[in-house]
Amino acid sequence: MRRRIIVIGGLAAGPSAASKAKRVNPSAEVLLFEQGEQISYGICEMPYYIAGLIKERRKLIVFTPEEFKEKRGVIAKVHHRVEQVIPGKRKVVVRDLAKDDVVEYDYEKAIIATGSKPRRINLHGEDSQNVFVLKSYDDGMRIREWIEKESPRKAVIVGGGYIGMEMAEALTTLDIETTMLHRSELPMVGLELETRKSVVEQLRNHGVYFVPAVSVKSLARESRPGKSTVTRVITNKGTYDCDLLILSLGVEPNVDVARGAGIALGVTGAIRVDEMQRTRTDNVYAAGDCCEVKNLVNDKPMYLPLATVASKAGWVAGENAAGGRAVFKGAIRAIAVKVFELEVGHVGLSAEEAEVSGFDVMTEIVVGDSRVSIMPGSRTVTVIYVLDRKSRRLLGANLFGGEGVALRANILAVAIQHHLTVDQISQLDLAYAPPFSPLWDPILVAANVSRRGLMRPGGKSE
Amino acid sequence: MRRRIIVIGGLAAGPSAASKAKRVNPSAEVLLFEQGEQISYGICEMPYYIAGLIKERRKLIVFTPEEFKEKRGVIAKVHHRVEQVIPGKRKVVVRDLAKDDVVEYDYEKAIIATGSKPRRINLHGEDSQNVFVLKSYDDGMRIREWIEKESPRKAVIVGGGYIGMEMAEALTTLDIETTMLHRSELPMVGLELETRKSVVEQLRNHGVYFVPAVSVKSLARESRPGKSTVTRVITNKGTYDCDLLILSLGVEPNVDVARGAGIALGVTGAIRVDEMQRTRTDNVYAAGDCCEVKNLVNDKPMYLPLATVASKAGWVAGENAAGGRAVFKGAIRAIAVKVFELEVGHVGLSAEEAEVSGFDVMTEIVVGDSRVSIMPGSRTVTVIYVLDRKSRRLLGANLFGGEGVALRANILAVAIQHHLTVDQISQLDLAYAPPFSPLWDPILVAANVSRRGLMRPGGKSE
Repeated sequence: MRRRIIVIGGLAAGPSAASKAKRVNPSAEVLLFEQGEQISYGICEMPYYIAGLIKERRKLIVFTPEEFKEKRGVIAKVHHRVEQVIPGKRKVVVRDLAKDDVVEYDYEKAIIATGSKPRRINLHGEDSQNVFVLKSYDDGMRIREWIEKESPRKAVIVGGGYIGMEMAEALTTLDIETTMLHRSELPMVGLELETRKSVVEQLRNHGVYFVPAVSVKSLARESRPGKSTVTRVITNKGTYDCDLLILSLGVEPNVDVARGAGIALGVTGAIRVDEMQRTRTDNVYAAGDCCEVKNLVNDKPMYLPLATVASKAGWVAGENAAGGRAVFKGAIRAIAVKVFELEVGHVGLSAEEAEVSGFDVMTEIVVGDSRVSIMPGSRTVTVIYVLDRKSRRLLGANLFGGEGVALRANILAVAIQHHLTVDQISQLDLAYAPPFSPLWDPILVAANVSRRGLMRPGGKSE
Repeated sequence: MRRRIIVIGGLAAGPSAASKAKRVNPSAEVLLFEQGEQISYGICEMPYYIAGLIKERRKLIVFTPEEFKEKRGVIAKVHHRVEQVIPGKRKVVVRDLAKDDVVEYDYEKAIIATGSKPRRINLHGEDSQNVFVLKSYDDGMRIREWIEKESPRKAVIVGGGYIGMEMAEALTTLDIETTMLHRSELPMVGLELETRKSVVEQLRNHGVYFVPAVSVKSLARESRPGKSTVTRVITNKGTYDCDLLILSLGVEPNVDVARGAGIALGVTGAIRVDEMQRTRTDNVYAAGDCCEVKNLVNDKPMYLPLATVASKAGWVAGENAAGGRAVFKGAIRAIAVKVFELEVGHVGLSAEEAEVSGFDVMTEIVVGDSRVSIMPGSRTVTVIYVLDRKSRRLLGANLFGGEGVALRANILAVAIQHHLTVDQISQLDLAYAPPFSPLWDPILVAANVSRRGLMRPGGKSE
């Protein structure tokens, strides 16, 4: 019998794992199950599709199941939900949602890539027709269709994280008056104070009404035959009208199947895996948003539901399930987001995380330019360094500004991942030309300022 | 008596060294001599000033001598040419060009930052009024003034290197019909073949007439009272009319003063210095374009006349001359240039240099996108890797394309400087968002393709 590898989940890690497994072992049968309608689509692009910047929905799909079969040799079954993994019998129990039929499949190796699920607000009315999360292709299509059909004039977004930012920009682009309700004083929990202030300023400059420190109490509904919508969001800070309600409260690992199979979870609540993406259960691998990831800055497990990590870890799971010996060492957390005209990048630990991890933390902030300041198009770039005073290592950084932020964050990502000190960063030989950067790039200036800061006795740098 | 530190040269390394020396030892007297009219100006910005993108010439000057005194505490004497350094007597002999007077100054430490000088073409007529090099503030001003006064319609640029590219763009922007004469088949010697082809295509697409494999035989002059200009450039490939002739044939180290003082030069012909920027002569430091630099990829001395290196080495020379113990480890060569709509980045060794350095060279080329391909504004980015098959290290890279090239080159600059393998590069955790990069950045794709290439037996990868 041919080796059969079963992959559970079709968004990022799953197709990545399945493709790699088939490539490594072309004689294996690789079967992928996905409960939704599509596999392998660009979920990160969804806000830009909703905003109308990407016109054709077909382009969001990297592979249809047919293309995936043809180009990657993987059989992908959509509308198939894996309900159970039985490691003792090497079986999965799968429900064909179209036929409402249950079938069992044997496997030699299984890869769990069940991803994450959006946090719910747990209030009556959350299931109304104008209330959306953005976690899947279907979610994106429903939002876009609702906007096209209903022409909402007022939107409320609950949650001021990455998706909240992108949706605020998308809705504002569509001339929908947007209110953002956020639990903390400032949006983007996890970023440094100055970054968060800059984000809130950017939101307000573009007409987004940001409400800080708010908790939603209830949702007022209007029900007519065939239509039930939330019309007002009632909070501790007043009531907000809405024709459209987006819930972007973050995600949590989707570990129902793993838990049912008795597969060990880690401290973060996500599936625990080793460097080869093996779970603690024989012949079962896992990758993507359902898993933990090792943080390469503090060597602790973290939960990091990102497509970049999922696709890399998926490759490794797929290669190993097919008999290879690949390793995924971990990640530092590298995130970028565009908030209207502001680019934001976050790499490595926040100052708070660094403190909790036991480092002797110092932070420095430097305001520089994206190009030589007198060149047309030059924009301000602010760099915040989070440093360990003892080892002089860069542990993390925030960058925000008008240009070249994400790629500069990636220069620092390499430095952070490879444990460079500020002294080494200050000696980096970086390419320079007036249209691209100043002679001393802001990240070099920040390194020099940090070196001076480290000479000051104790205390936080001024 | 106060310690006196004398700095010879006022462009990049000199002011950097002088500022740092004064900061490290505020009680020292720091004296800087510059033969030209200005110190501390943006020579790299000059093509953009000539093109009219930077309007005010004042903005090109970082510090006037007065400001340098006030803000940095350094006495800068312009129109002062150092004619001799006498290490045995710790003296410099300086000509005041305004007064045509010679004065001797004692020093405790001297820093030579005499920079580079443009290569000449050594033909009769080279000193005509419409023939220019671009190496100093005065050169830039003269070009701009000539263009404003004479409204040239046809320009010839001899030399297809970095300055040639920037001047071709500048002159074309000013609607001056531009011909570029270059000694090789393709411009930009030192870059990989595909990069050079892309550059020549870019030039031609923007109306620059590129003439390959050409050598200039003579210059035809027209002389009238008070005016002597070159009107035609005669070559082995025909004759080219010109109202304006730019010579951009590269530079060589300006070591006249050093040689006169018996200071040791290295194999490259530039001043030999150690990690502390000390020359082989007691109490004499050197930094900038007059010095060699250690190449951190192959550990050999190289000549690298770049402002980025000069300012870093200048700092180190200044700090050490003032009694500190700073180190400049070297550079990898990191260069970026804009050629109309094409961005070009070059970091580390070329394939040819790598061969000569004894590496077992493999190259890979990958064409990717600057953003998620379906996002508006996404451009093609080509990445060429130069690898060592044995150590699997990335030795060098070329990048070219429409967006985000220079900063991506800098991500690789860190990897090259810190001797990362392609395996490590493929595991880099990089920030991603659809407006900034694809899920798999071209540099990650290139790493993965390279890893597959390394599995193929011997030979150049296909």
